[in-house]
Amino acid sequence: MVEETRERIMEATYRTLCEYGYASLTMQDIADECDCSKSLLHYHFDTKEDLLVALLAHLLERFEERADTTDADPRDQLVGLVEGFLFGDERNRSEHRAFHTALLELRAQAPHNETFRDQLAENDAQVHATVTAVIERGIDAGRFRNVDAPRTAAHLLAAVQGARIRWVTLGHDTAVDTIHEALVSDVIDGWLVAE
Amino acid sequence: MVEETRERIMEATYRTLCEYGYASLTMQDIADECDCSKSLLHYHFDTKEDLLVALLAHLLERFEERADTTDADPRDQLVGLVEGFLFGDERNRSEHRAFHTALLELRAQAPHNETFRDQLAENDAQVHATVTAVIERGIDAGRFRNVDAPRTAAHLLAAVQGARIRWVTLGHDTAVDTIHEALVSDVIDGWLVAE
Repeated sequence: MVEETRERIMEATYRTLCEYGYASLTMQDIADECDCSKSLLHYHFDTKEDLLVALLAHLLERFEERADTTDADPRDQLVGLVEGFLFGDERNRSEHRAFHTALLELRAQAPHNETFRDQLAENDAQVHATVTAVIERGIDAGRFRNVDAPRTAAHLLAAVQGARIRWVTLGHDTAVDTIHEALVSDVIDGWLVAE
Repeated sequence: MVEETRERIMEATYRTLCEYGYASLTMQDIADECDCSKSLLHYHFDTKEDLLVALLAHLLERFEERADTTDADPRDQLVGLVEGFLFGDERNRSEHRAFHTALLELRAQAPHNETFRDQLAENDAQVHATVTAVIERGIDAGRFRNVDAPRTAAHLLAAVQGARIRWVTLGHDTAVDTIHEALVSDVIDGWLVAE
Protein backbone atom coordinates (compact mmCIF):
# COMPACT_ATOMS: atom_id res chain seq x y z
CA MET A 1 0.00 0.00 0.00
CA VAL A 2 1.43 3.40 -0.86
CA GLU A 3 2.06 5.63 2.15
CA GLU A 4 -0.42 8.26 0.99
CA THR A 5 -3.29 5.75 0.75
CA ARG A 6 -2.43 4.35 4.14
CA GLU A 7 -2.36 7.82 5.69
CA ARG A 8 -5.75 8.65 4.13
CA ILE A 9 -7.33 5.42 5.39
CA MET A 10 -5.90 5.91 8.88
CA GLU A 11 -7.16 9.50 9.11
CA ALA A 12 -10.64 8.40 7.97
CA THR A 13 -10.64 5.52 10.47
CA TYR A 14 -9.66 7.90 13.26
CA ARG A 15 -12.38 10.42 12.39
CA THR A 16 -15.17 7.83 11.99
CA LEU A 17 -14.14 6.06 15.20
CA CYS A 18 -14.43 9.40 17.04
CA GLU A 19 -17.79 10.07 15.42
CA TYR A 20 -19.51 6.66 15.69
CA GLY A 21 -17.67 4.90 18.54
CA TYR A 22 -16.40 1.34 18.20
CA ALA A 23 -19.55 -0.81 18.34
CA SER A 24 -21.59 0.84 15.61
CA LEU A 25 -18.68 1.69 13.28
CA THR A 26 -18.81 -0.09 9.88
CA MET A 27 -16.32 -0.51 7.03
CA GLN A 28 -18.85 1.41 4.89
CA ASP A 29 -18.69 4.44 7.27
CA ILE A 30 -14.90 4.44 6.94
CA ALA A 31 -15.04 4.05 3.13
CA ASP A 32 -17.49 6.97 2.93
CA GLU A 33 -15.29 9.20 5.09
CA CYS A 34 -12.21 8.14 3.13
CA ASP A 35 -13.98 8.75 -0.17
CA CYS A 36 -12.82 5.35 -1.35
CA SER A 37 -14.57 2.06 -2.12
CA LYS A 38 -15.32 -0.53 0.53
CA SER A 39 -13.53 -3.07 -1.67
CA LEU A 40 -10.33 -1.00 -1.53
CA LEU A 41 -10.53 -1.06 2.28
CA HIS A 42 -11.16 -4.80 2.27
CA TYR A 43 -8.22 -5.30 -0.10
CA HIS A 44 -5.89 -3.92 2.58
CA PHE A 45 -7.74 -4.89 5.76
CA ASP A 46 -9.85 -8.03 6.21
CA THR A 47 -12.01 -6.71 9.02
CA LYS A 48 -12.90 -3.59 11.00
CA GLU A 49 -10.82 -5.09 13.80
CA ASP A 50 -7.71 -5.24 11.57
CA LEU A 51 -8.26 -1.63 10.59
CA LEU A 52 -8.52 -0.52 14.22
CA VAL A 53 -5.38 -2.44 15.17
CA ALA A 54 -3.59 -0.71 12.27
CA LEU A 55 -4.89 2.62 13.58
CA LEU A 56 -3.45 1.93 17.05
CA ALA A 57 -0.08 1.10 15.47
CA HIS A 58 -0.28 4.27 13.34
CA LEU A 59 -1.07 6.47 16.37
CA LEU A 60 1.85 4.91 18.21
CA GLU A 61 4.20 5.76 15.30
CA ARG A 62 2.99 9.35 15.29
CA PHE A 63 3.44 9.57 19.08
CA GLU A 64 7.00 8.27 18.79
CA GLU A 65 7.84 10.83 16.09
CA ARG A 66 6.52 13.70 18.19
CA ALA A 67 8.16 12.46 21.41
CA ASP A 68 11.60 12.31 19.79
CA THR A 69 12.93 15.62 21.15
CA THR A 70 15.94 14.89 23.32
CA ASP A 71 17.20 18.47 23.47
CA ALA A 72 14.32 19.77 25.61
CA ASP A 73 14.60 20.19 29.39
CA PRO A 74 13.57 16.78 30.84
CA ARG A 75 11.09 18.38 33.29
CA ASP A 76 9.41 20.36 30.48
CA GLN A 77 9.41 17.35 28.20
CA LEU A 78 7.77 15.20 30.89
CA VAL A 79 5.14 17.86 31.59
CA GLY A 80 4.51 18.11 27.83
CA LEU A 81 3.99 14.35 27.58
CA VAL A 82 1.56 14.33 30.54
CA GLU A 83 -0.37 17.25 29.01
CA GLY A 84 -0.53 15.53 25.64
CA PHE A 85 -1.92 12.37 27.26
CA LEU A 86 -4.52 14.32 29.25
CA PHE A 87 -5.62 16.99 26.80
CA GLY A 88 -4.60 15.77 23.33
CA ASP A 89 -2.05 17.40 21.10
CA GLU A 90 -2.95 19.49 18.10
CA ARG A 91 -6.44 18.01 18.35
CA ASN A 92 -9.26 19.73 20.13
CA ARG A 93 -10.58 18.57 23.49
CA SER A 94 -13.95 17.27 22.29
CA GLU A 95 -12.22 15.16 19.63
CA HIS A 96 -9.75 13.89 22.25
CA ARG A 97 -12.71 12.93 24.40
CA ALA A 98 -14.55 11.19 21.54
CA PHE A 99 -11.39 9.22 20.74
CA HIS A 100 -10.90 8.10 24.34
CA THR A 101 -14.57 7.15 24.63
CA ALA A 102 -14.15 4.85 21.62
CA LEU A 103 -10.78 3.59 22.92
CA LEU A 104 -12.44 2.61 26.19
CA GLU A 105 -14.93 0.45 24.26
CA LEU A 106 -12.00 -1.13 22.49
CA ARG A 107 -10.16 -1.71 25.79
CA ALA A 108 -13.27 -3.34 27.25
CA GLN A 109 -13.05 -5.88 24.37
CA ALA A 110 -9.38 -6.61 25.06
CA PRO A 111 -9.85 -9.21 27.85
CA HIS A 112 -11.70 -11.36 25.27
CA ASN A 113 -9.86 -10.28 22.11
CA GLU A 114 -6.22 -11.24 21.68
CA THR A 115 -5.58 -9.04 18.63
CA PHE A 116 -6.69 -5.87 20.42
CA ARG A 117 -4.91 -6.96 23.58
CA ASP A 118 -1.59 -7.51 21.80
CA GLN A 119 -1.66 -4.14 20.04
CA LEU A 120 -2.79 -2.29 23.18
CA ALA A 121 0.04 -3.99 25.09
CA GLU A 122 2.49 -2.91 22.38
CA ASN A 123 1.30 0.72 22.55
CA ASP A 124 1.37 0.61 26.33
CA ALA A 125 4.92 -0.80 26.44
CA GLN A 126 6.29 1.73 23.94
CA VAL A 127 4.69 4.73 25.64
CA HIS A 128 6.01 3.46 28.98
CA ALA A 129 9.51 3.09 27.49
CA THR A 130 9.39 6.66 26.13
CA VAL A 131 8.31 8.17 29.47
CA THR A 132 10.89 6.05 31.32
CA ALA A 133 13.64 7.32 28.96
CA VAL A 134 12.72 10.97 29.68
CA ILE A 135 12.84 10.33 33.44
CA GLU A 136 16.19 8.54 33.11
CA ARG A 137 17.57 11.43 31.08
CA GLY A 138 16.41 13.81 33.84
CA ILE A 139 18.13 11.70 36.51
CA ASP A 140 21.36 11.54 34.48
CA ALA A 141 21.25 15.33 34.02
CA GLY A 142 20.77 15.86 37.78
CA ARG A 143 17.42 17.51 37.08
CA PHE A 144 15.44 14.71 38.78
CA ARG A 145 16.08 12.86 42.01
CA ASN A 146 17.40 9.31 41.68
CA VAL A 147 13.99 7.62 41.56
CA ASP A 148 12.88 4.28 40.13
CA ALA A 149 12.28 5.51 36.57
CA PRO A 150 10.12 2.64 35.21
CA ARG A 151 7.96 2.76 38.35
CA THR A 152 7.53 6.52 38.17
CA ALA A 153 6.61 6.25 34.48
CA ALA A 154 4.03 3.54 35.29
CA HIS A 155 2.64 5.75 38.06
CA LEU A 156 2.22 8.81 35.79
CA LEU A 157 0.65 6.69 33.04
CA ALA A 158 -1.76 4.90 35.40
CA ALA A 159 -2.96 8.23 36.83
CA VAL A 160 -3.42 9.64 33.31
CA GLN A 161 -5.34 6.56 32.27
CA GLY A 162 -7.57 6.58 35.33
CA ALA A 163 -8.33 10.30 34.91
CA ARG A 164 -9.21 9.95 31.23
CA ILE A 165 -11.53 7.05 31.99
CA ARG A 166 -13.28 9.03 34.73
CA TRP A 167 -13.56 11.94 32.30
CA VAL A 168 -15.11 9.95 29.45
CA THR A 169 -17.35 7.68 31.56
CA LEU A 170 -18.70 10.24 34.02
CA GLY A 171 -18.40 13.37 31.92
CA HIS A 172 -16.43 15.19 34.65
CA ASP A 173 -14.26 17.70 32.82
CA THR A 174 -12.52 18.56 36.06
CA ALA A 175 -11.17 14.99 36.37
CA VAL A 176 -8.35 15.62 33.88
CA ASP A 177 -7.66 19.14 35.20
CA THR A 178 -7.29 17.91 38.79
CA ILE A 179 -4.94 15.09 37.78
CA HIS A 180 -2.94 17.53 35.67
CA GLU A 181 -2.33 19.67 38.78
CA ALA A 182 -1.56 16.62 40.93
CA LEU A 183 0.93 15.16 38.46
CA VAL A 184 2.68 18.45 37.61
CA SER A 185 2.66 20.21 41.01
CA ASP A 186 2.77 17.25 43.39
CA VAL A 187 4.59 14.47 41.53
CA ILE A 188 6.87 16.18 39.01
CA ASP A 189 7.68 19.55 40.63
CA GLY A 190 6.92 18.53 44.24
CA TRP A 191 8.62 15.17 44.41
CA LEU A 192 10.59 14.29 41.27
CA VAL A 193 12.55 17.46 40.45
CA ALA A 194 15.84 17.62 42.40
CA GLU A 195 16.04 20.41 45.01
CA MET B 1 -37.95 -6.56 50.11
CA VAL B 2 -36.63 -8.21 53.27
CA GLU B 3 -32.94 -7.59 53.89
CA GLU B 4 -32.07 -11.27 53.67
CA THR B 5 -33.60 -11.62 50.20
CA ARG B 6 -31.84 -8.49 49.02
CA GLU B 7 -28.50 -9.75 50.34
CA ARG B 8 -28.99 -13.12 48.61
CA ILE B 9 -29.89 -11.49 45.28
CA MET B 10 -26.91 -9.10 45.49
CA GLU B 11 -24.47 -11.94 46.26
CA ALA B 12 -25.83 -13.97 43.33
CA THR B 13 -25.63 -10.94 41.01
CA TYR B 14 -22.03 -10.33 42.06
CA ARG B 15 -21.00 -13.96 41.51
CA THR B 16 -22.72 -14.33 38.13
CA LEU B 17 -21.34 -10.98 36.93
CA CYS B 18 -17.83 -12.20 37.81
CA GLU B 19 -18.49 -15.50 36.06
CA TYR B 20 -20.25 -14.36 32.85
CA GLY B 21 -19.21 -10.73 32.44
CA TYR B 22 -21.72 -7.98 31.69
CA ALA B 23 -22.73 -8.55 28.06
CA SER B 24 -23.75 -12.20 28.23
CA LEU B 25 -25.25 -12.12 31.74
CA THR B 26 -29.00 -12.88 31.86
CA MET B 27 -31.67 -12.57 34.58
CA GLN B 28 -32.02 -16.38 34.30
CA ASP B 29 -28.30 -16.86 35.18
CA ILE B 30 -28.79 -14.73 38.28
CA ALA B 31 -32.01 -16.54 39.26
CA ASP B 32 -30.24 -19.91 38.89
CA GLU B 33 -27.29 -18.79 41.04
CA CYS B 34 -29.69 -17.27 43.59
CA ASP B 35 -31.79 -20.42 43.63
CA CYS B 36 -34.90 -18.29 43.20
CA SER B 37 -37.41 -17.78 40.38
CA LYS B 38 -36.88 -15.31 37.56
CA SER B 39 -40.29 -13.84 38.43
CA LEU B 40 -39.09 -13.03 41.96
CA LEU B 41 -36.12 -11.17 40.47
CA HIS B 42 -38.37 -9.30 38.05
CA TYR B 43 -40.73 -8.44 40.90
CA HIS B 44 -37.92 -6.45 42.56
CA PHE B 45 -35.88 -5.36 39.51
CA ASP B 46 -37.32 -4.54 36.10
CA THR B 47 -34.15 -5.19 34.11
CA LYS B 48 -30.63 -6.58 34.34
CA GLU B 49 -29.48 -2.97 34.27
CA ASP B 50 -31.52 -2.11 37.41
CA LEU B 51 -30.04 -5.13 39.16
CA LEU B 52 -26.49 -4.08 38.29
CA VAL B 53 -27.11 -0.52 39.47
CA ALA B 54 -28.45 -1.95 42.76
CA LEU B 55 -25.29 -4.08 43.00
CA LEU B 56 -23.07 -0.99 42.61
CA ALA B 57 -25.04 0.75 45.39
CA HIS B 58 -24.77 -2.37 47.57
CA LEU B 59 -20.99 -2.61 47.06
CA LEU B 60 -20.66 1.07 47.95
CA GLU B 61 -22.59 0.49 51.21
CA ARG B 62 -20.31 -2.41 52.09
CA PHE B 63 -17.24 -0.31 51.30
CA GLU B 64 -18.48 2.51 53.54
CA GLU B 65 -19.09 0.08 56.42
CA ARG B 66 -15.58 -1.36 56.16
CA ALA B 67 -13.93 2.05 55.72
CA ASP B 68 -15.49 3.41 58.91
CA THR B 69 -12.47 2.97 61.22
CA THR B 70 -11.41 6.36 62.48
CA ASP B 71 -9.17 5.07 65.28
CA ALA B 72 -6.50 3.65 62.94
CA ASP B 73 -3.29 5.52 62.10
CA PRO B 74 -4.18 7.68 59.04
CA ARG B 75 -1.13 6.45 57.09
CA ASP B 76 -2.00 2.80 57.74
CA GLN B 77 -5.65 3.41 56.94
CA LEU B 78 -4.75 5.10 53.65
CA VAL B 79 -2.39 2.25 52.70
CA GLY B 80 -5.17 -0.22 53.61
CA LEU B 81 -7.63 1.58 51.34
CA VAL B 82 -5.16 1.62 48.42
CA GLU B 83 -4.44 -2.09 48.92
CA GLY B 84 -8.16 -2.89 49.06
CA PHE B 85 -8.72 -1.03 45.76
CA LEU B 86 -5.80 -2.76 44.06
CA PHE B 87 -6.01 -6.30 45.40
CA GLY B 88 -9.56 -6.72 46.75
CA ASP B 89 -10.47 -7.31 50.35
CA GLU B 90 -11.49 -10.66 51.73
CA ARG B 91 -12.01 -11.77 48.12
CA ASN B 92 -9.38 -13.60 46.19
CA ARG B 93 -7.35 -11.99 43.43
CA SER B 94 -8.89 -13.90 40.50
CA GLU B 95 -12.38 -12.95 41.67
CA HIS B 96 -11.26 -9.33 42.08
CA ARG B 97 -9.96 -9.46 38.53
CA ALA B 98 -13.15 -11.01 37.14
CA PHE B 99 -15.20 -8.33 38.87
CA HIS B 100 -13.09 -5.49 37.47
CA THR B 101 -13.19 -7.03 33.99
CA ALA B 102 -17.01 -6.94 34.15
CA LEU B 103 -16.97 -3.46 35.71
CA LEU B 104 -14.88 -2.21 32.79
CA GLU B 105 -17.58 -3.43 30.36
CA LEU B 106 -20.13 -1.59 32.46
CA ARG B 107 -17.99 1.59 32.49
CA ALA B 108 -17.65 1.42 28.72
CA GLN B 109 -21.49 1.59 28.55
CA ALA B 110 -21.63 4.63 30.84
CA PRO B 111 -21.01 7.32 28.19
CA HIS B 112 -24.23 6.15 26.49
CA ASN B 113 -26.18 5.00 29.56
CA GLU B 114 -27.32 7.59 32.08
CA THR B 115 -28.43 5.10 34.75
CA PHE B 116 -24.99 3.44 34.90
CA ARG B 117 -23.29 6.82 34.68
CA ASP B 118 -25.25 8.27 37.62
CA GLN B 119 -24.56 5.29 39.88
CA LEU B 120 -20.87 5.10 38.89
CA ALA B 121 -20.59 8.85 39.60
CA GLU B 122 -22.21 8.31 43.01
CA ASN B 123 -19.78 5.48 43.87
CA ASP B 124 -16.88 7.54 42.60
CA ALA B 125 -17.88 10.62 44.64
CA GLN B 126 -18.39 8.64 47.87
CA VAL B 127 -15.11 6.76 47.58
CA HIS B 128 -13.33 10.04 46.83
CA ALA B 129 -14.96 11.65 49.90
CA THR B 130 -13.83 8.73 52.11
CA VAL B 131 -10.21 8.89 50.92
CA THR B 132 -10.22 12.70 51.23
CA ALA B 133 -11.47 12.41 54.84
CA VAL B 134 -8.62 10.04 55.76
CA ILE B 135 -6.05 12.43 54.26
CA GLU B 136 -7.63 15.39 56.09
CA ARG B 137 -7.53 13.46 59.35
CA GLY B 138 -3.83 12.75 58.73
CA ILE B 139 -3.14 16.44 58.09
CA ASP B 140 -5.04 17.48 61.25
CA ALA B 141 -3.08 14.91 63.26
CA GLY B 142 0.23 16.22 61.89
CA ARG B 143 0.91 12.82 60.35
CA PHE B 144 0.68 14.15 56.76
CA ARG B 145 2.04 17.32 55.23
CA ASN B 146 -0.49 20.09 54.56
CA VAL B 147 -1.38 18.95 51.02
CA ASP B 148 -4.50 19.53 48.92
CA ALA B 149 -6.51 16.58 50.27
CA PRO B 150 -9.19 16.28 47.54
CA ARG B 151 -6.52 16.51 44.84
CA THR B 152 -4.33 13.91 46.52
CA ALA B 153 -7.34 11.58 46.90
CA ALA B 154 -8.19 12.05 43.19
CA HIS B 155 -4.57 11.30 42.30
CA LEU B 156 -4.46 8.06 44.33
CA LEU B 157 -7.81 6.93 42.91
CA ALA B 158 -6.91 7.74 39.31
CA ALA B 159 -3.66 5.75 39.60
CA VAL B 160 -5.53 2.80 41.16
CA GLN B 161 -8.13 2.92 38.40
CA GLY B 162 -5.55 3.12 35.62
CA ALA B 163 -3.56 0.22 37.09
CA ARG B 164 -6.62 -2.00 37.46
CA ILE B 165 -7.65 -1.31 33.87
CA ARG B 166 -4.16 -2.15 32.60
CA TRP B 167 -4.27 -5.31 34.69
CA VAL B 168 -7.63 -6.54 33.40
CA THR B 169 -7.21 -5.46 29.77
CA LEU B 170 -3.63 -6.55 29.18
CA GLY B 171 -3.40 -9.32 31.76
CA HIS B 172 -0.27 -7.80 33.31
CA ASP B 173 -0.32 -8.90 36.94
CA THR B 174 2.67 -6.68 37.66
CA ALA B 175 0.63 -3.55 36.77
CA VAL B 176 -1.11 -3.49 40.15
CA ASP B 177 2.03 -4.49 42.06
CA THR B 178 4.09 -1.68 40.50
CA ILE B 179 1.42 0.93 41.24
CA HIS B 180 1.13 -0.41 44.78
CA GLU B 181 4.84 0.30 45.31
CA ALA B 182 4.63 3.71 43.62
CA LEU B 183 1.62 4.83 45.68
CA VAL B 184 2.85 3.49 49.03
CA SER B 185 6.61 4.18 48.77
CA ASP B 186 6.67 7.25 46.53
CA VAL B 187 3.38 9.07 47.17
CA ILE B 188 2.30 8.14 50.70
CA ASP B 189 5.60 7.46 52.52
CA GLY B 190 7.85 9.48 50.17
CA TRP B 191 5.83 12.63 49.71
CA LEU B 192 2.68 12.73 51.88
CA VAL B 193 3.86 11.62 55.33
CA ALA B 194 5.28 14.54 57.35
CA GLU B 195 9.01 14.35 58.06
